[in-house]
Amino acid sequence: MTLDDLPTPCLVLDRGILDRNIRAMASAVKRLGVPLRPHLKTAKSIDVARMALQGQPGGITVSTLAEAEYFLGHGITDILYAVGITPQKLDQVVRLNANGARIIVVTDDPEMAAVIGRHPSPPRTLIEIDSGESRGGLHPSDDRLGPIAASLGDGLAGVMTHAGHSYAGRGIREIEAIAAQERLAVTGAAGRLRDGGYRIDIVSAGSSPTARHAENFAGVTELRAGVYMFGDLFQAGIDTHGADAIAVTVLASVIGRRPGRILVDAGGLALSKDRSTEAGPRDYGYGLALDIAGQPSYGFAIVTRAYQEHGVIQCDPAQPIDLPIGGKLRIAPNHTCMTGAAHDRYFVVDGEQAVAAIWHRVNGW
Amino acid sequence: MTLDDLPTPCLVLDRGILDRNIRAMASAVKRLGVPLRPHLKTAKSIDVARMALQGQPGGITVSTLAEAEYFLGHGITDILYAVGITPQKLDQVVRLNANGARIIVVTDDPEMAAVIGRHPSPPRTLIEIDSGESRGGLHPSDDRLGPIAASLGDGLAGVMTHAGHSYAGRGIREIEAIAAQERLAVTGAAGRLRDGGYRIDIVSAGSSPTARHAENFAGVTELRAGVYMFGDLFQAGIDTHGADAIAVTVLASVIGRRPGRILVDAGGLALSKDRSTEAGPRDYGYGLALDIAGQPSYGFAIVTRAYQEHGVIQCDPAQPIDLPIGGKLRIAPNHTCMTGAAHDRYFVVDGEQAVAAIWHRVNGW
Repeated sequence: MTLDDLPTPCLVLDRGILDRNIRAMASAVKRLGVPLRPHLKTAKSIDVARMALQGQPGGITVSTLAEAEYFLGHGITDILYAVGITPQKLDQVVRLNANGARIIVVTDDPEMAAVIGRHPSPPRTLIEIDSGESRGGLHPSDDRLGPIAASLGDGLAGVMTHAGHSYAGRGIREIEAIAAQERLAVTGAAGRLRDGGYRIDIVSAGSSPTARHAENFAGVTELRAGVYMFGDLFQAGIDTHGADAIAVTVLASVIGRRPGRILVDAGGLALSKDRSTEAGPRDYGYGLALDIAGQPSYGFAIVTRAYQEHGVIQCDPAQPIDLPIGGKLRIAPNHTCMTGAAHDRYFVVDGEQAVAAIWHRVNGW
Repeated sequence: MTLDDLPTPCLVLDRGILDRNIRAMASAVKRLGVPLRPHLKTAKSIDVARMALQGQPGGITVSTLAEAEYFLGHGITDILYAVGITPQKLDQVVRLNANGARIIVVTDDPEMAAVIGRHPSPPRTLIEIDSGESRGGLHPSDDRLGPIAASLGDGLAGVMTHAGHSYAGRGIREIEAIAAQERLAVTGAAGRLRDGGYRIDIVSAGSSPTARHAENFAGVTELRAGVYMFGDLFQAGIDTHGADAIAVTVLASVIGRRPGRILVDAGGLALSKDRSTEAGPRDYGYGLALDIAGQPSYGFAIVTRAYQEHGVIQCDPAQPIDLPIGGKLRIAPNHTCMTGAAHDRYFVVDGEQAVAAIWHRVNGW
């Protein structure tokens, strides 16, 4: 089976690029002396997880309890669920932990910490710290830090932060500065808690840009990152990785031809409506057209409109796309985490167009 | 089971509102004297299809062959696959038709028409006409219309158009004007082909706004529409339906609280990254927060940021959201077709919060 035989739209994963991306991140965090707890929210695949865990301690990060259950079913037990826990989800975590998982949860809320602390078998819990993203987490100097730690009691395992604002960084220097801020926030919070007599085993930080480009993560015990495995146009735009490091693309077929543009069967569902690159150095619409071999043969041909199942590609006059109806091409995504959502599998290739494997994804909740 | 018991995020479908929306559309098309071929691309559910088909001839429209196969498995045979056909998908259609389906396909391409015409058992085919959206289809005066009809031979069943540009209409008067343009384009093409000696049985048109608000669809044999069943903030904004006609919402839990805003567990996957309302009369960010009963108790509280699994709701100072961690609320979507994509089921309610049924969706391709 080759790409030409596949029904479209579908996700193509280039294992060679994936492997290179994983090695690059492994070498970046090794230089920092911090192990990786890969975030599987982008890949949602045990096959990818196994590659990402090579040379790492074996713990993973997830964004849904569906992922936690799936990876537990495949033998991974050390799982950080990195989205703020609720009482209902706490019950679900406790059930999974009773079945062999060792799920770690996250909170930044005093009342929720009390709920966890009162539980007869609380999971290990990290207090979320805001290192500048201003999404979740407490400022490291927040007065509630001590009381939350006290409420958690024996459940307290450490602190965590996510420098999601590194996505607004432009270039390696800016990302380095955000990584320094991330480190200071989370190690500062850990220091305050230790000074207060609390035992802090885990000091968890990370995002793909900061894990890749930090100069120093001293005091941090683990780094979390996810999108680095696959890369995308946005991450390439902010220099998290090179333009040739995008491992996931959407295979599409031509379904219409007009002067200067083509219509493909990959629209808003197959590509997602993510417009991350609008805020980046170069706006790729809903994605960049590549040839079926994944090569940039069509110049700056981007998906300018995305309907549910139709995508409109505006061709580059210098490198027009001359394909018949049914001809296939690939589209590099703005944001792979979003683009994966509607796809239940990867068709895996190794540079060539032969399909080497089919890997499944765990979607939903 | 009530909404309070459900894991979040998930899709809630209010059957009472759905029923009202379906009746409103049925009455609109009855007034026009044109039957409905409901588009199931939004609902992707046999339970919804059965409601939408009441009082209609029984044919449906789909946007993927996965939908075609699913609905065929549930006994629906008259299926229009309304996305331009390719040679590979033609083979798949022919196989489904050999298994009892009567799938109709669409093309606007001379070479593809020749492929269909040469097939030993071609499906019925409609020639796609562009009525102003400028996505797919030929202008009704296009010289290629006759040659395509000739190539299709006995496969030719008619013409179709989709006035997707009605989504850019602002108010009922503008939508009426676009509906008139839609009708003229598709009946004009049908007339030219009949004048050329071709038999045209099907003259298919429609979009939710134009099907709902047209003054006249004389000469059109069927109307296609889909999003009307569920409605959304965008359609309410352009007056396709009222603000109380949104049948699908996303149930979410509070996972973080900060002054003036809350964090919920519905982000870019659960809501989609669709930003349709940005171009509408009022920008709702990634959705509007309602209380767990689906009532607008929180004023203009909208999702201003959507990460993969986190949504940030900026509260309305006049009607703050006072919920604990784990407290539940509902989010009305910008564009239900997109929001459904990551969800595999509906939790069905009837005005109240009791879950009356669970209906499955056929996602993917």
